[in-house]
Amino acid sequence: MAKKVLIVYAHQSGASFNAAAKNVVVEVLSTKDCTVEVSDLYAMKFQASATAEDITGDVKDTENFRYAEETKLAWEEGKLSADITEEQRKVTEADLIIFQFPMYWSTVPAIMKGWFDRVLTLGFAYSQDKMYSNGMFKGKKVMLSFTTGCHESMFTENGISGDINVTLWPLQNGILYYCGFQVLAPQIFWAPSLISSEERKAMLEAWRTRLQGLLEEEPLGFTPLDCFDEKGFQLKPEVREKHAAKKVGLAVGIHLGMPLPPNSQVKAGV
Amino acid sequence: MAKKVLIVYAHQSGASFNAAAKNVVVEVLSTKDCTVEVSDLYAMKFQASATAEDITGDVKDTENFRYAEETKLAWEEGKLSADITEEQRKVTEADLIIFQFPMYWSTVPAIMKGWFDRVLTLGFAYSQDKMYSNGMFKGKKVMLSFTTGCHESMFTENGISGDINVTLWPLQNGILYYCGFQVLAPQIFWAPSLISSEERKAMLEAWRTRLQGLLEEEPLGFTPLDCFDEKGFQLKPEVREKHAAKKVGLAVGIHLGMPLPPNSQVKAGV
Repeated sequence: MAKKVLIVYAHQSGASFNAAAKNVVVEVLSTKDCTVEVSDLYAMKFQASATAEDITGDVKDTENFRYAEETKLAWEEGKLSADITEEQRKVTEADLIIFQFPMYWSTVPAIMKGWFDRVLTLGFAYSQDKMYSNGMFKGKKVMLSFTTGCHESMFTENGISGDINVTLWPLQNGILYYCGFQVLAPQIFWAPSLISSEERKAMLEAWRTRLQGLLEEEPLGFTPLDCFDEKGFQLKPEVREKHAAKKVGLAVGIHLGMPLPPNSQVKAGV
Repeated sequence: MAKKVLIVYAHQSGASFNAAAKNVVVEVLSTKDCTVEVSDLYAMKFQASATAEDITGDVKDTENFRYAEETKLAWEEGKLSADITEEQRKVTEADLIIFQFPMYWSTVPAIMKGWFDRVLTLGFAYSQDKMYSNGMFKGKKVMLSFTTGCHESMFTENGISGDINVTLWPLQNGILYYCGFQVLAPQIFWAPSLISSEERKAMLEAWRTRLQGLLEEEPLGFTPLDCFDEKGFQLKPEVREKHAAKKVGLAVGIHLGMPLPPNSQVKAGV
């Protein structure tokens, strides 16, 4: 059956490596019976900041404006601004979402952070009952695909930028898995601006090859919701005991004072 | 001598707890012979997205626009947009910068990420020679002060959101320490929306008390630049050997396959 793919893309220039990486997705997945839609954030002049203007008409509490509560109400009443509603439609229809961006300051550029802040609203993307393995989007796949400004060796447990698994945890666990998404291993293009054009071509070819089987890939492993008690969201004693004999923690954040599980944020099946 | 303090503040409402936390800083530090300046990002309608409009006049390469390189040139030639130049002036003058915000999706709201992306430009905030303990701003102090939507117990090595030290690492090491800042322990207001108004008052009182001695606080510990070789930025073998007998890694990211040093991102002197 035809799959729907959404690319949320954040680069200012169509001549960039990020643009090329995005174009490869469109090209490859379109031939695999997928419908590919692109949200080109800079071209759309996508609004990044979360403000009262995201709600059409009056807000509930003008004195004490609270973004999460106001956008939840607006979503229920169909009063979110047209640009948010349109992105939410794309998310609802998508089977797979790929975020394509240059890493800025260890995370996504502000324009993409604005997409997370404004599109993944309370009610639509999560609620007190719907999160993590019980999240709204548990039937959907998602992945980060990004370029870095430094070499892979710097983003290790021994390198000056530190383990890339740590840097990816807030993004992949705190945003994507929180909303229930099955998170595919990230596609990391290490420092394309520091290598030769031959090497860049090889990077894109490897991406093209990976895309052939992307929809069949196993997602990264995260700790399921039912490992935690429902009241305080602490790991259940029986889960902790069962894990005690292991040599590494459960996850990067849920490490139990043990060494981090190696590569858990960059490879599936670990 | 009078110190200059800059508060970079991101909340939409003057009735919010974040506004109250910001107001306490202005009040307390103004009485301590400090000059306090506030960048109220939403009130300023601060532009979050990094675009070619951040450069006045022509860019160097319109075909293949690269933000870091273009803003470096523009900074050298005094051609950065007026709003960026004004924020850079505030940074240059400040002895202490406090970022006050509600945590959105495990990090700063997009409007504040936009401040990092656009104000901390190449040349002005960092360069290949000037980073980490040799960074541009090594004479300045900085700190994060933020509210969360969940209780502290959830942000632990045993809680569903994972160790807060992991979540703070990309922000505090990857942005603030990268620019050389001495990073003071963060002020974390845990879930003010879930507690009583009495408890909120007590939180603000504790903040007021901390502020009395803030400028004399010891900063968080990070791994100095000279622990790494200059070519590949890998930890020097002698540093690694010296550390091998310890029970925990050097830092959250630079963990050497060992357990993370507890509380290194939330307390000084660990």
